[in-house]
Amino acid sequence: MKKLQETIKSITPLSKNHMDLAKERLDLLIKPLDSLGKLETIAIQLSGIYENNYYDTSNKLILGFGADHGVYEENVSPCKQVVTQQQFANFVGGGNGVSTLCNFTNSHVWAIDVGINCDEEITGVFNEKIRKSTDNMRIGPAMAYDEAIKSLEIGIKYATLAKEKGYKVIGIGEMGICNTTPSTAIMSVFFDLLPENITGMGCGLDNEGILRKMNVIKDSIKINKPDKNDPIDILAKVGGFEIGAMAGAILGAASLRMPVVLDGFISYAAFIIAYGLNNLCKDYAIPSHMSAEPASKLVLDKLSLSPLLNLDMKLGEGSGAALAFNIIEAANFTYKNMLTFDESNMENTHP
Amino acid sequence: MKKLQETIKSITPLSKNHMDLAKERLDLLIKPLDSLGKLETIAIQLSGIYENNYYDTSNKLILGFGADHGVYEENVSPCKQVVTQQQFANFVGGGNGVSTLCNFTNSHVWAIDVGINCDEEITGVFNEKIRKSTDNMRIGPAMAYDEAIKSLEIGIKYATLAKEKGYKVIGIGEMGICNTTPSTAIMSVFFDLLPENITGMGCGLDNEGILRKMNVIKDSIKINKPDKNDPIDILAKVGGFEIGAMAGAILGAASLRMPVVLDGFISYAAFIIAYGLNNLCKDYAIPSHMSAEPASKLVLDKLSLSPLLNLDMKLGEGSGAALAFNIIEAANFTYKNMLTFDESNMENTHP
Repeated sequence: MKKLQETIKSITPLSKNHMDLAKERLDLLIKPLDSLGKLETIAIQLSGIYENNYYDTSNKLILGFGADHGVYEENVSPCKQVVTQQQFANFVGGGNGVSTLCNFTNSHVWAIDVGINCDEEITGVFNEKIRKSTDNMRIGPAMAYDEAIKSLEIGIKYATLAKEKGYKVIGIGEMGICNTTPSTAIMSVFFDLLPENITGMGCGLDNEGILRKMNVIKDSIKINKPDKNDPIDILAKVGGFEIGAMAGAILGAASLRMPVVLDGFISYAAFIIAYGLNNLCKDYAIPSHMSAEPASKLVLDKLSLSPLLNLDMKLGEGSGAALAFNIIEAANFTYKNMLTFDESNMENTHP
Repeated sequence: MKKLQETIKSITPLSKNHMDLAKERLDLLIKPLDSLGKLETIAIQLSGIYENNYYDTSNKLILGFGADHGVYEENVSPCKQVVTQQQFANFVGGGNGVSTLCNFTNSHVWAIDVGINCDEEITGVFNEKIRKSTDNMRIGPAMAYDEAIKSLEIGIKYATLAKEKGYKVIGIGEMGICNTTPSTAIMSVFFDLLPENITGMGCGLDNEGILRKMNVIKDSIKINKPDKNDPIDILAKVGGFEIGAMAGAILGAASLRMPVVLDGFISYAAFIIAYGLNNLCKDYAIPSHMSAEPASKLVLDKLSLSPLLNLDMKLGEGSGAALAFNIIEAANFTYKNMLTFDESNMENTHP
């Protein structure tokens, strides 16, 4: 708990001075004011995060957390639970979505097992297993309060390790069959949204399955009564280990002044937990893509987060964050390399 | 006219066979079905365009067309007209938005002067000047019908040249101070939209300026009475030389079975002209980003085009298309490099 509290307390606002300087440079570049949109916003945000106007964004890492869910037994996913373990091996073995997109964007991925339902260690994966899967939240809390704290602290630990290893940008990813169910439950509690209005197909439920999932989410909230003012309580009662670890990684990144790139739907739920613990972490977050889950827009609008990519992706893993690394590098590249009016001998004709 | 008519006639549908084969491969990759969203759609589209399931997308070119507009004298832009010429030099000299983003995505840009208001040749720029600026469309047609055809045929010529030079993907860009004014007029005519509802700030008009611009658009349509069923007539009466050339490049690319990446607001207007001449060209188009101009979403929805990037960009030049080249390469890369269930010894647990 001490590590978590220290981390939460140590998050400070962005450097306004460096953001102003970045904006000043952007306004001198040979383009209409603000015409590069979010590419400019990101360049300004990064200046504020790094407290520096010139920085390197080439070392990029996805922190991928894997865990299983007791609520799987309620038949809320068309995928088999063993896929969590099998697919997690591909995070480091290569060939799946996130590792392929990390190759494409010249970035790396770490895979951290925080609760996969298997006894054997997975080759290449960091073992931080809290235990083999949460409990079924339709019957009682998914995990103990202490376990929720532990999951958050694992996330902090790996954000710290990433910083120590020289990474400048981190993205968060996950693997956990049926984890849109706890994610939707977290959103429902935090924003007082009816499960009827926000439950989606996850990795491919049919309509009957969506109805079943929706009822499981309703029951889980009813039986556990999570305290919407205590994000750790929400995480413990209707969350998941990987969701907690992702939230911890967000808090850790923010406390270490590193930008943290969100991925899809599960990462929105993790962000909610982190944001509930210290809303300053939002200044450090960069939303990557709009997930195809139907509640995505509603939830991101409530958080005033507007993603960079609109690709109808619903894979998770960190795949969207890995792809968005490219846009972040593009922002830094244009900010650094475009010419100013003076440099190009053009008259500054800004209106 | 002959070249244009031949081009329009020679556009054929995508190869369904190759699209089916691409979809088949995508469904064997270790991910839930369709979970890579538009990355999958693009891989399928490219297979259909190239009539091949394995293709190279690394040679990418922006065709940037520059021209000035007689309607500039109506005070519809806060920028000075000389910026067209000055900024066009930077397409090839480097340091502006599109050339910087082309550097970032390892792509090239050609700059083609189709009507810039200057006498001197611009170093490095292809000279295809129809004449120095269109006429003021508030007084009469922006150009003659023959000139509209000529602008379209220049676009076809450069798409053909790009193909000959080995480019595999082209994007369209432009430079032309005040060209959101003719673009908005084209949209208004083609879709029966009221200028009141779709006129925006362009590169930075204030509210009074937007009102003035809106009235200019209304007057131009009223006085010229473009025939909404004849895209060439629309282009001639309320269009621009660079808009015609972009439309020609779209038609040319489609006739040559090359994907053509749209840019921002001006490119939507060009696409409308091309689409009006042969709606099959849509199969070859890839929308890159949602322009910050307010009518963008309305117009793209009417065309059923959903862009990849949501960056609030409003620079034009081809900058959004250049950045989106990266997403297209990501689509091809994941399609090619992700493993299948067999290759990774995973059970195919598709629902």
